[in-house]
Amino acid sequence: MQQESNAQAPLNPGVVFDMVQAHQRTAALNAAIQLDVFRAIGEGPGDVASIARHCSASERGIRILCDFLVINGVIAKEGGRYAHTPSSAAFLDPASPACMASVAQFLSAPQIVQADEHLAEIVRAGRTNLPGQGTVEPENPVWVLFAEKMAPMMGPMAGPLGAVVLEGQSGPMRVLDIAAGHGLFGIEIAKQNPKAQVTGLDWAPVLRVALDNARKAGVHDRYDMLPGSAFEVEFGGPYDAVLLTNFLHHFDHATCVGLLKKVRAALKPGGRAATLEFVPNEDRVSPPMPAAFAMTMLTTTAEGDAYPLSALTAMHKEAGYSATKAHPIPMSPHTIVMGYA
Amino acid sequence: MQQESNAQAPLNPGVVFDMVQAHQRTAALNAAIQLDVFRAIGEGPGDVASIARHCSASERGIRILCDFLVINGVIAKEGGRYAHTPSSAAFLDPASPACMASVAQFLSAPQIVQADEHLAEIVRAGRTNLPGQGTVEPENPVWVLFAEKMAPMMGPMAGPLGAVVLEGQSGPMRVLDIAAGHGLFGIEIAKQNPKAQVTGLDWAPVLRVALDNARKAGVHDRYDMLPGSAFEVEFGGPYDAVLLTNFLHHFDHATCVGLLKKVRAALKPGGRAATLEFVPNEDRVSPPMPAAFAMTMLTTTAEGDAYPLSALTAMHKEAGYSATKAHPIPMSPHTIVMGYA
Repeated sequence: MQQESNAQAPLNPGVVFDMVQAHQRTAALNAAIQLDVFRAIGEGPGDVASIARHCSASERGIRILCDFLVINGVIAKEGGRYAHTPSSAAFLDPASPACMASVAQFLSAPQIVQADEHLAEIVRAGRTNLPGQGTVEPENPVWVLFAEKMAPMMGPMAGPLGAVVLEGQSGPMRVLDIAAGHGLFGIEIAKQNPKAQVTGLDWAPVLRVALDNARKAGVHDRYDMLPGSAFEVEFGGPYDAVLLTNFLHHFDHATCVGLLKKVRAALKPGGRAATLEFVPNEDRVSPPMPAAFAMTMLTTTAEGDAYPLSALTAMHKEAGYSATKAHPIPMSPHTIVMGYA
Repeated sequence: MQQESNAQAPLNPGVVFDMVQAHQRTAALNAAIQLDVFRAIGEGPGDVASIARHCSASERGIRILCDFLVINGVIAKEGGRYAHTPSSAAFLDPASPACMASVAQFLSAPQIVQADEHLAEIVRAGRTNLPGQGTVEPENPVWVLFAEKMAPMMGPMAGPLGAVVLEGQSGPMRVLDIAAGHGLFGIEIAKQNPKAQVTGLDWAPVLRVALDNARKAGVHDRYDMLPGSAFEVEFGGPYDAVLLTNFLHHFDHATCVGLLKKVRAALKPGGRAATLEFVPNEDRVSPPMPAAFAMTMLTTTAEGDAYPLSALTAMHKEAGYSATKAHPIPMSPHTIVMGYA
């Protein structure tokens, strides 16, 4: 749905009805994941009876659930049998290495979805209803969950990010990964450049997840850990590159500028800061996914936002960076925004 | 989204992400209704500051909420100002007589949305997790709420339904409105034919809502009440027409046939039974709205369904009707299905 055409869209009560009932979609996807429906569909033959058997579920329930997934474009149906779409095969079948089922688990965590019931009061107050600073409250355990569950969504972006950050650099270099989370971005740098030394910064319990991933990737001998808050610990350095992935959106403009200044002070001359962000167009209502992300920042933070490129560029400028460059990642709602010291 | 094309749809993780986050849409619409955002937009000028003032809400909250509504096609945005679409002006602004805000309230009633948390177990069991027969449990207070809140959604269908049922009949006639609810369908018959005598059948507390509406329409002198269950009370009659609106979908095939038999026995020769139903195509996955309604029947009833026309025709046949005829209602997910005695 595009906002340009909204003003002229034909009269249609379905728009309202669709929005009222949208919650059923989240519930249906989560139920299908819990019941292992996507594995059953992948294994075939895809008729109601065999899926119901696989899932230890009723035929009425499976038929209505699977039809609902078809209606919403998640799976396909032909001749009464259900089958994967290319996307459900890749992203929802547990047999696929790119399965994102755990992403659904993270994004449906009680701490996150509870905001739905309080959205009017959140809009009134203009900030999360969660205690303190919301999800960015120190040591919030939600980030361990994030590190564990969101890797499948972030993994595909690591390759492009690594290439943009390295700019072909193959010699020894030092990289700081702020709010490392699952650690995949720093690990990718270490994989692409065998001479890169990476330091992951995050709360200690989160870094354990990152170190585990570094071990799996065989780069743990070049992976150091700096536990704590990005706003409090000394960064050390100097670094050739600093990664700030999925981080700035949690904070207001002034906080971002302050952090970017601290980052710049830890960069070598010619070094760069790489942010990975949801970057909507200047109209803030397109493209849909990055623009809609502002809602999640409203419900879970005190002052976060989905910043358009003009806002991120202004932050860089105020923090003393000489140039800003944006690299949208294909097939993803994310953009890499580079700031050059 | 069309199921025919699902199997060939390009690889897109956005389909999954969109489904995971869909619950935010319901929350956003409900919050905007609660905060009176749609009235503020209708009154103009539509900038963030003035909407925030009208709604006693923060500017950050209003800006993010309104952008989210634009992204989802509900309202429009131009030059930083928000404006109604034709649909939001008609169906969401409380200043509009067709405002459907109360429909959102009904469809977000705790009794209905609580199913989301239990959908996997509902699919396993193949039936609602509500006690007894779910929403069709005798005297369930949800139907008073339905009668009060759903009238704006049903109102626009009353005109077409009245015309189809009357077939030009302007002389004296008797009409039974089973599960009358808000009563609007029977009342419409009485309005279109000043010689029609209408009997509303429903639980007594629901009929009070219907009688109130009959009074407002000035037809209460031709409106009788028959309180009780359609499965238990004597229908009386004989009737020229019986209305069975939004009712069969709550029950299984055998129960529907039994009820249709009882209805036929109360019809005059040449009489007709008019059902108003969500009627999906035979593939049960199109059109989206009537097909998706099966999910609501799964979560709120023991054996209800969204029946395709073949199933409704078979019920008519088994119940002894001589013919079945379907009249889809334009701009609505509903179809009028006539059965001729």
